[in-house]
Amino acid sequence: MKLSFQKNDLLSTLQVVGKAVASKTTLSIMECILVDATEGQIRLTGNKNDFGIESICPGDILEPGKIALEARLFQEIIKRLPQTEGKNILLSTEENGNCTIQCEKSVFKIMGRNPDEFTSLPSVEKQEIVEISQLSLRNMINQTIFSTASGENNKKMTGEYFEIIDNQFSITALDGHRIAIRKTELSESYDNCSAIVPKEVLSELSKIISGGLEDKVEICFSKQYLQFSFEDTIVVTQLVEGEYFHVRQMLSSDYETKIRLNRKQFLENIDRARILARDNDKQPLILKIEDQSLSLKIVSDIGRMDAEMPVQQEGKDLLIGFNPTYLMDALQNIEEEEVDLYFTISRSPVFIRDQEESYNYMILPVNFNAEAVG
Amino acid sequence: MKLSFQKNDLLSTLQVVGKAVASKTTLSIMECILVDATEGQIRLTGNKNDFGIESICPGDILEPGKIALEARLFQEIIKRLPQTEGKNILLSTEENGNCTIQCEKSVFKIMGRNPDEFTSLPSVEKQEIVEISQLSLRNMINQTIFSTASGENNKKMTGEYFEIIDNQFSITALDGHRIAIRKTELSESYDNCSAIVPKEVLSELSKIISGGLEDKVEICFSKQYLQFSFEDTIVVTQLVEGEYFHVRQMLSSDYETKIRLNRKQFLENIDRARILARDNDKQPLILKIEDQSLSLKIVSDIGRMDAEMPVQQEGKDLLIGFNPTYLMDALQNIEEEEVDLYFTISRSPVFIRDQEESYNYMILPVNFNAEAVG
Repeated sequence: MKLSFQKNDLLSTLQVVGKAVASKTTLSIMECILVDATEGQIRLTGNKNDFGIESICPGDILEPGKIALEARLFQEIIKRLPQTEGKNILLSTEENGNCTIQCEKSVFKIMGRNPDEFTSLPSVEKQEIVEISQLSLRNMINQTIFSTASGENNKKMTGEYFEIIDNQFSITALDGHRIAIRKTELSESYDNCSAIVPKEVLSELSKIISGGLEDKVEICFSKQYLQFSFEDTIVVTQLVEGEYFHVRQMLSSDYETKIRLNRKQFLENIDRARILARDNDKQPLILKIEDQSLSLKIVSDIGRMDAEMPVQQEGKDLLIGFNPTYLMDALQNIEEEEVDLYFTISRSPVFIRDQEESYNYMILPVNFNAEAVG
Repeated sequence: MKLSFQKNDLLSTLQVVGKAVASKTTLSIMECILVDATEGQIRLTGNKNDFGIESICPGDILEPGKIALEARLFQEIIKRLPQTEGKNILLSTEENGNCTIQCEKSVFKIMGRNPDEFTSLPSVEKQEIVEISQLSLRNMINQTIFSTASGENNKKMTGEYFEIIDNQFSITALDGHRIAIRKTELSESYDNCSAIVPKEVLSELSKIISGGLEDKVEICFSKQYLQFSFEDTIVVTQLVEGEYFHVRQMLSSDYETKIRLNRKQFLENIDRARILARDNDKQPLILKIEDQSLSLKIVSDIGRMDAEMPVQQEGKDLLIGFNPTYLMDALQNIEEEEVDLYFTISRSPVFIRDQEESYNYMILPVNFNAEAVG
């Protein structure tokens, strides 16, 4: 095999497919990137346990062939080669797997791996293909993913729930203490479909779909896999098995108290309070809503903080406690200057949502001893 | 005690004295900052095992007094208070050590520590006071400190050697494999004096002397301590005991081979070579000087790299091996576009130095098996 590349083309393709390369495994072929130039295009593939990325790299095929190369080493070499304009990076392999990477007067010789050991991506049987803007998908993932669980206790909580109903696309994440939902309207209607997508894949995906509102991603739903296609790249992931939680039953639009407040000011007050909860994440932040005003209070072994800010209050007064970090996570992922919070009683969750429910963040309250915090 | 501050004044003073606060100790008073407003000024002090920093903070003394406050907590609170223009931060303490920090509608109550437990800085008996620009001192420290040793095997190697001879000020660091020396001319002459300064202190000091060429530091030499004074701040450090190495005997200005080369190009080639030495820092980079050209070669379990670059050669051809990281460290701390390297034989060190010896970096070579690397 003999290929020539321009440095930046090869480097950016490696950075994309490198997201699906295992970093420490016992199966060392999973630490490799497959370079396949047998079918008229130079196709690079990374394939981890549960997801894989394939991307076409611009370049010239001087002699077809394929090889698997250790991803980290391959990337480091390309990154450090001289920055030149032309297709000056020459990658060539011999029968025995010896691989030479040359650029101007720098020559690397490393050992390649047998490309036949490499597991190729599953071919996805296409059921429904949905088109969405890269910007929307990226934002929706980033604005919900913090609400997934990390442990292995409940596998379904470690994924995000993708759901299409007509022309509505929503992403839901929950971890047992909170729910995050983002919804958007698609430009056309589709058959209803859904999938639980592992969060790890989405976290990597959100880094490589860097396009804007006009750039599209195709999401292809199938029984066992989800496939994302955009530009010269496809990402294929296994799905989390099982039926997702019945989230709609946990939501409610009734409320007894509604406050509208300045999001940034609220965030700054919560951030202050968190200083005193640093050694104990369970220390509740207590909110007191009364007379168009919100008081915040936290009491811990370290000390005590009191703060106060004006709000537009509708309905009853209320005293309620929350994990301050959960409040921050939700508020940091909203862009609006003013937000609405909906409460019922002190044992019921708060909902932070807009009119159209393009976002809806639910957070369960925390019990506290009202006497002790004076 | 009752004091009022402007947020930025207090925050920047805390960041300075905070450099001399222990982060995890059994003596928890060493994790504190002393606030002393008993003598007409607000003096903040941090004092670690072997060095301390004291700085005057602008502010109003409404009621004199002193208190010790946990440094990290104190900093975090001030950092997160509202950003206001006036002296709106109010710090007040009660007899029992209760401390209130208030800014607008945010109020923190934390426990202070007994200020009498706090060890004050030693008073330094002034022998010789040397004045140098903040910029020069900062650069000289940063450009040599990488050559100090980290272990406890040889305490003297963990410090930097400060030496004044007439109007010459030099800083020397060595770790058994290499020596780094930076020298500068002072604006006047002083009595000869010297000290071995712990590198940890210098590393923190270089972060807080942020001034330019016109801003001065006074270095006060005494038997047991060194004191740096600048603006409203003093830094006092214990010295490393003992006599420093006789470095002058290790230097030599004779050479058999001299090459002048482009520093950046050399650095890029070394950086490339280091990819293949990543699992084994001892893997030598082999330099071959011949016919006005420098070949670089490295061979490891991972693979092999060859590169070549033009040099201006004077004297004999040479084949010699080095730890690539040591070469990089020295070259990265030189600003000149072109540098001169002086060699004698393959078992003798290289010297990278300029004409005036404002810098002189010595690196010992590494043995290698010339056969094996073909």
